Amino acid sequence: MSDPMQNESWILPDGIEEVLPPEAALVERRRRQLLDLFASWGYDYVIPPFVEFLDALLTGTGSDLDLQTFKLTDQLSGRTLGIRADITPQAARMDAHNIGRDEPTRLCYLGSVLHTRSDGFAGSRSPLQIGAELYGHAGVESDVEILRLMMQTLELTGLEEVYLDLGHVGIYRGLAQQAGLSESQERALFDALQRKALPEVAELLADFQVDAEVAAMLAALGELNGDVTLLSRARHLLKAADQSVQQALDYLQRMADQIAIWLPQLPIHFDLAELRGYHFHTGVVFAAFVPGSGREIARGGRYDRIGKVFGRARPATGFSTDLKTLIRLGNSADVPQPEAIFAPWSDDPALAAEVERLRVAGQRVISGLPGQQGGAQEMGCIQELRLSDGQWRLVRL
Amino acid sequence: MSDPMQNESWILPDGIEEVLPPEAALVERRRRQLLDLFASWGYDYVIPPFVEFLDALLTGTGSDLDLQTFKLTDQLSGRTLGIRADITPQAARMDAHNIGRDEPTRLCYLGSVLHTRSDGFAGSRSPLQIGAELYGHAGVESDVEILRLMMQTLELTGLEEVYLDLGHVGIYRGLAQQAGLSESQERALFDALQRKALPEVAELLADFQVDAEVAAMLAALGELNGDVTLLSRARHLLKAADQSVQQALDYLQRMADQIAIWLPQLPIHFDLAELRGYHFHTGVVFAAFVPGSGREIARGGRYDRIGKVFGRARPATGFSTDLKTLIRLGNSADVPQPEAIFAPWSDDPALAAEVERLRVAGQRVISGLPGQQGGAQEMGCIQELRLSDGQWRLVRL
Repeated sequence: MSDPMQNESWILPDGIEEVLPPEAALVERRRRQLLDLFASWGYDYVIPPFVEFLDALLTGTGSDLDLQTFKLTDQLSGRTLGIRADITPQAARMDAHNIGRDEPTRLCYLGSVLHTRSDGFAGSRSPLQIGAELYGHAGVESDVEILRLMMQTLELTGLEEVYLDLGHVGIYRGLAQQAGLSESQERALFDALQRKALPEVAELLADFQVDAEVAAMLAALGELNGDVTLLSRARHLLKAADQSVQQALDYLQRMADQIAIWLPQLPIHFDLAELRGYHFHTGVVFAAFVPGSGREIARGGRYDRIGKVFGRARPATGFSTDLKTLIRLGNSADVPQPEAIFAPWSDDPALAAEVERLRVAGQRVISGLPGQQGGAQEMGCIQELRLSDGQWRLVRL
Repeated sequence: MSDPMQNESWILPDGIEEVLPPEAALVERRRRQLLDLFASWGYDYVIPPFVEFLDALLTGTGSDLDLQTFKLTDQLSGRTLGIRADITPQAARMDAHNIGRDEPTRLCYLGSVLHTRSDGFAGSRSPLQIGAELYGHAGVESDVEILRLMMQTLELTGLEEVYLDLGHVGIYRGLAQQAGLSESQERALFDALQRKALPEVAELLADFQVDAEVAAMLAALGELNGDVTLLSRARHLLKAADQSVQQALDYLQRMADQIAIWLPQLPIHFDLAELRGYHFHTGVVFAAFVPGSGREIARGGRYDRIGKVFGRARPATGFSTDLKTLIRLGNSADVPQPEAIFAPWSDDPALAAEVERLRVAGQRVISGLPGQQGGAQEMGCIQELRLSDGQWRLVRL
């Protein structure tokens, strides 16, 4: 099969894809398998709208999402609408406002999002976002549940050799606070750390006149990555950090312990400068990779504050991914090809009854049409209904 | 169950709905049932994009769709994009350009569309459009196939007492041509006929100085509606009409004959002024109603010309409807409620194995989380896994 998501770009805008047969059937099959998987873990399906008032859509999400969001004017209200660029904030609003339970709430969703600029695989601006979110529990157990569900999602789509980047935004945030950085300084340093531009990090720390001990710790972040043994190294290098940083390190240790129980085969790469979704996340963050793909194929983490503006600041953790990317990189060898039956055009009630019986039994029966181009084989059928001895019988072609 | 599509309007724009649990699960179930139904008839699923270049989206569709289409600017290309207000033209483009077969092609789709103004049930501006299209065959047999599939769609969602309006836009179009009406005159008369404003129709015909015999036939359209006996009355009243009108009447007669075979129970209301989709359709048109609903709940018909601009003027017929409307008006008594099992938090491998076994078997198992609010019953579970005699067993609550 060629790239199932290939863009017929003669007529579609760059990064906006359509999906044709037979690839669309594969997308539908994976969609059902994944929503069934989420349901089996107790995640309730929700359908957030494709557009909302812009302010509701961007609440608590930071400026990255704003830049990625298409805006349009609502003739009815005169207000600005946004096309969702991420479904996670919509799910958080649903939990905070509309569902409003005290018990943990598990939600899942699948739908198109649109980005003004491509930041996904193969230049896509229209991912098919699928994800699961768990509200109302603060602790590694819910983060690990989400992580396990993310790994099962990748496994189901045939992705192998997955490895995980694991970090905690509380470490950088705590050190930046301890350093007394202003918001713009914090952002500049964050950008440099994200790019692992270590000389630039050192320069910025000097410019900002950060206390030497704290500066050393911030600079160390860029090199604090590796396997689980990294955590003791971090303990040592960051021992002068504030309590919030120590707590974040404790949290990562508990995550590592839980992952060893639930996902013992998963290769973990700890990275204390891993700050994906920094403006949005509040705790542990993780991203999954496969060999040869420079970008993450799925990501998740904790974002405890987002529901606050909707009236309820519940703990929250979740993951999301792009179903089209998973299909592109995954394996579809398990997906059966549909086999069709051709029925000649006839108003014989006996044929109509047989066709109906076959369809209800889940068979695919294509009716011939008088004067049509092509016959059973040109229509891709491997069987045909033929009248013999007064009975309509299936004949293999 | 309350209205499943109720709009939580405090935060969403008018006519833009979200769907929460448990109603979203019902939407998903119907979605699967309907796509499976379409597949069993040989319709291939396609996923057209939510936005396209505006000109591609509106090609051949008339000004009604233009007014209903949200526009936005693509930063990447500088061109104007449209949010689809109808999926049918997208499917026609896929057939004409991307699929390009000579044999009949059957496509189906399901997706959100967006309208600048409400024209649907309950003021919705965001229907969940579902439909099926058949390309490459000109004749009543394909129209009747589409009609049968539309009726099965309505039946599957529990809609009963459906009746059908049936017309043919070729009758009005032929008479307007015979009368020598200009485009603006044709449109003015069309508007009056659609509203069944008969005095206004008479006035316009006089203003336009239409030949008396043709004027009488055009005026008669407003009253030419009723059961199948109407066709012989129309033959008589329209006997001076051009050949294209006679052919349209022949076509309607063959439709009536086929419907009598395939859908003998369906009440048909013929209406020669039934001109829904006049600027788009080219032949037979039909719309389904249920008692008490002033608007049609599904509609369809022939639109043979639409693929021309994409290089192939194939015959085409299809139907579409709004899944949210079908669910709102339909019956969900057949939909089973999910039954969940509660599993206490534990890292006992025996419990983990049992939970995994139940989930793979299709059960819904919700894991407890340490310190969480509420227990099994508050989480909506009707069974719980409990350890007794060293074994994890299901206990009904």
